[in-house]
Amino acid sequence: MISAEAIRAGDRRALARAITLVESARADHRTQALALLSALGHDRQALRIGLSGTPGVGKSTFIEAFGKMLTAAGKRVAVLAVDPSSARSGGSILGDKTRMELLSRDPLAFIRPSPSQAQMGGVARRTREAVALCEAAGFDVVLIETVGVGQSETMVAEMCDLFLLLLAPAGGDELQGVKRGIMEMADLILVNKADGDLKPAAIRTCGDYAGALRLLRRRPQDPDGFPKAMMVSAVEQSGMAESWDEMQALAEWRRDSGHWSARRAAQARHWFQEEVRQGLLAALSREPAKGIMERLGDSVAAGRATPEAAAAEMLGLIGR
Amino acid sequence: MISAEAIRAGDRRALARAITLVESARADHRTQALALLSALGHDRQALRIGLSGTPGVGKSTFIEAFGKMLTAAGKRVAVLAVDPSSARSGGSILGDKTRMELLSRDPLAFIRPSPSQAQMGGVARRTREAVALCEAAGFDVVLIETVGVGQSETMVAEMCDLFLLLLAPAGGDELQGVKRGIMEMADLILVNKADGDLKPAAIRTCGDYAGALRLLRRRPQDPDGFPKAMMVSAVEQSGMAESWDEMQALAEWRRDSGHWSARRAAQARHWFQEEVRQGLLAALSREPAKGIMERLGDSVAAGRATPEAAAAEMLGLIGR
Repeated sequence: MISAEAIRAGDRRALARAITLVESARADHRTQALALLSALGHDRQALRIGLSGTPGVGKSTFIEAFGKMLTAAGKRVAVLAVDPSSARSGGSILGDKTRMELLSRDPLAFIRPSPSQAQMGGVARRTREAVALCEAAGFDVVLIETVGVGQSETMVAEMCDLFLLLLAPAGGDELQGVKRGIMEMADLILVNKADGDLKPAAIRTCGDYAGALRLLRRRPQDPDGFPKAMMVSAVEQSGMAESWDEMQALAEWRRDSGHWSARRAAQARHWFQEEVRQGLLAALSREPAKGIMERLGDSVAAGRATPEAAAAEMLGLIGR
Repeated sequence: MISAEAIRAGDRRALARAITLVESARADHRTQALALLSALGHDRQALRIGLSGTPGVGKSTFIEAFGKMLTAAGKRVAVLAVDPSSARSGGSILGDKTRMELLSRDPLAFIRPSPSQAQMGGVARRTREAVALCEAAGFDVVLIETVGVGQSETMVAEMCDLFLLLLAPAGGDELQGVKRGIMEMADLILVNKADGDLKPAAIRTCGDYAGALRLLRRRPQDPDGFPKAMMVSAVEQSGMAESWDEMQALAEWRRDSGHWSARRAAQARHWFQEEVRQGLLAALSREPAKGIMERLGDSVAAGRATPEAAAAEMLGLIGR
C-alpha cells in the first residue's frame, strides 16, 4: 500500500508509484486508487497549466526553460504528458526524460511521461488522477503537455486552470492550420523560436494571432487584454518571465472574480458525468452483455434484424 | 398510418411523410417508425453515395447536373442532406429546394432538406432511416450530401457504399486544408469548377490530390487505380459521365469481390452498437437517473465528493 502521508510529505517514489496505480486497469488497483485519492483529499491546489503544440514547435525546450525558471524561484513543478497517439506507436512524447535533461534532475521538478493507453476515456481519467496526486503532493504548478490533435486538447483544457498554445513562427497563410476550436480554448498563445533568423517571422506571426484572437467572441472568464499572443524564445530564454507574469495576472483575476472556483466546479461535474457515461458503456464490454451484443450484432450483419430492432431488444434485455 | 405498400409503390407523399415520422422524437412516432421500417424490409438496395464538400465548392450545382444526368438515363435519384450546423442556425443546407430547381421538379428525383436537429446521434439515425425508406421506395441512387466539418463525414461514410469528396481548384498550399482523415475516406475526389479561368488551377489541384492519394495506405476495398482524383465541371456539365462510369466500375468491383456486402454488414453492426450506446446514455437524461445525476453532480461541484467516488455511487444506484 502507498501511504497518503508519504505523498503529502513530498515523497517522490510514493508519488510515482501512486501514478502507476491510477494508470492500472486492474480492479483491485482501482479500488486502492480510489481509496488513496479519497484519503488524500483536495485541500491543496496547484496552478494547472495545459500546454498544447504540434510536434517540432519546441514544447520540450520551452517546458525545460519555463520549468527551470519556476524552480529557480522556489516553485515546485510537475510535468505530465498526454499523448493519445502513443497508444498506437507504443512510444511516449516524453520519452526517457532525456528531452528535459536539466529539469528532470531538478529536485523541485517531477516529470512523468505519457503511458501507452488505448482509450481516450482511460487517458482522461489517469491524467486527472495524476494531477490530483501532484496537487496533494504539494506541487505549485502542474503542467499538462499534449500534442495538437484536437480531442486531447479539449480533454486537457477540461482539467486546467489556464491553457497555453505554443506555436512556431509561420507564414500568414498557415494561420488556418490552427483549428478555430483550439484557438478558442487558448488563454495565451506563445509564439516560440522568436530568436535569430526566425525573429521577423515570429513578430509577424504573433501579430497575426493577436489579430485573430481579437476576432473571437469575448469569454466571461477573460479580463481585458485576454486571450493574448506573445513571443518567447526557449533557446534564448526570453519572454519566459513575461509569460509567467501574464499567467499569474490571469490566474489572480480569475481567482478574485470567482471564475477559478466556478470553472473547477464545472470541471469536476463534467468528469463525474463522463465517468458515469464511460462506466455505463463499459458494461457492454463485459459478460453477459458482451455475448448478447455479439449475437445480436451477427444477426444484424446477416440482415435478419434491423439495427434499430436489435438495439431495442438489447436495451430491453439489459433492463433499459 | 403510412402504409408500407404506398412507399414501395413509389408514392412520394407517403415517402415524405415517412421521413417526417422517422425524424420525430415522440415515443409513439418511434414505435410507428420502427414498425414501418420492419414492414418495409430491406430486399431493395440503392447505390448509396456520400458526397462531402465545404460550402462554396459547388455541391448543389454538381448534384443538380449529376442528378439530371442520371434521371435522363431513367435512374431514380433521391438526395438527402446532413447538416449538423443547421441545428444551430435553424436553417438547412438544402434550403427551400431552390438550390436545385431543375432536379427538384424532376419526377424521377426526390430531394429532402436537412432538418434542424440538435444531436449527432439523432441526425445519424434519421438519415440512416431516411436512406432505408428511399431504398424501399425503389430509388436506384441515394445521394447523401454533407458539409465538410469532420464528424458528419465519418457518419455519412458509415452509411454509404461510395464516398465522394468535392473540392474546388486551389493553390498547392491549400491541400493541407483537407483533413487527412477525410482524404482517407474518399473513394473519388472530384475537383469541381474545371472550367474557364479556373481550368489550369483545376488541372494542377487534381494532380496534387492524385499524388496525395497515392501516398495513402492501400485499402482492401479498392481495386487498382482507386481512390482516384478527377476533374468535373458542374457548370459545363463535363466529367459527369466519366465520374459516373468510375463510380459504377468501383461499385461493380466491390460487389463482385464481396466487399460491398461485407461493408453493409459491418455498417449495420456499427449502427446497432451505436443505437445501443445512445440508448444506454439516454437513460441518464430520464428520471429517476437524471435527478440523481444532478444531485451527485452538485455534490462533486461543491467538493463534497470526488468525480470518481460519485460516479461509482451513481453506477451502483442504477445497478451497473
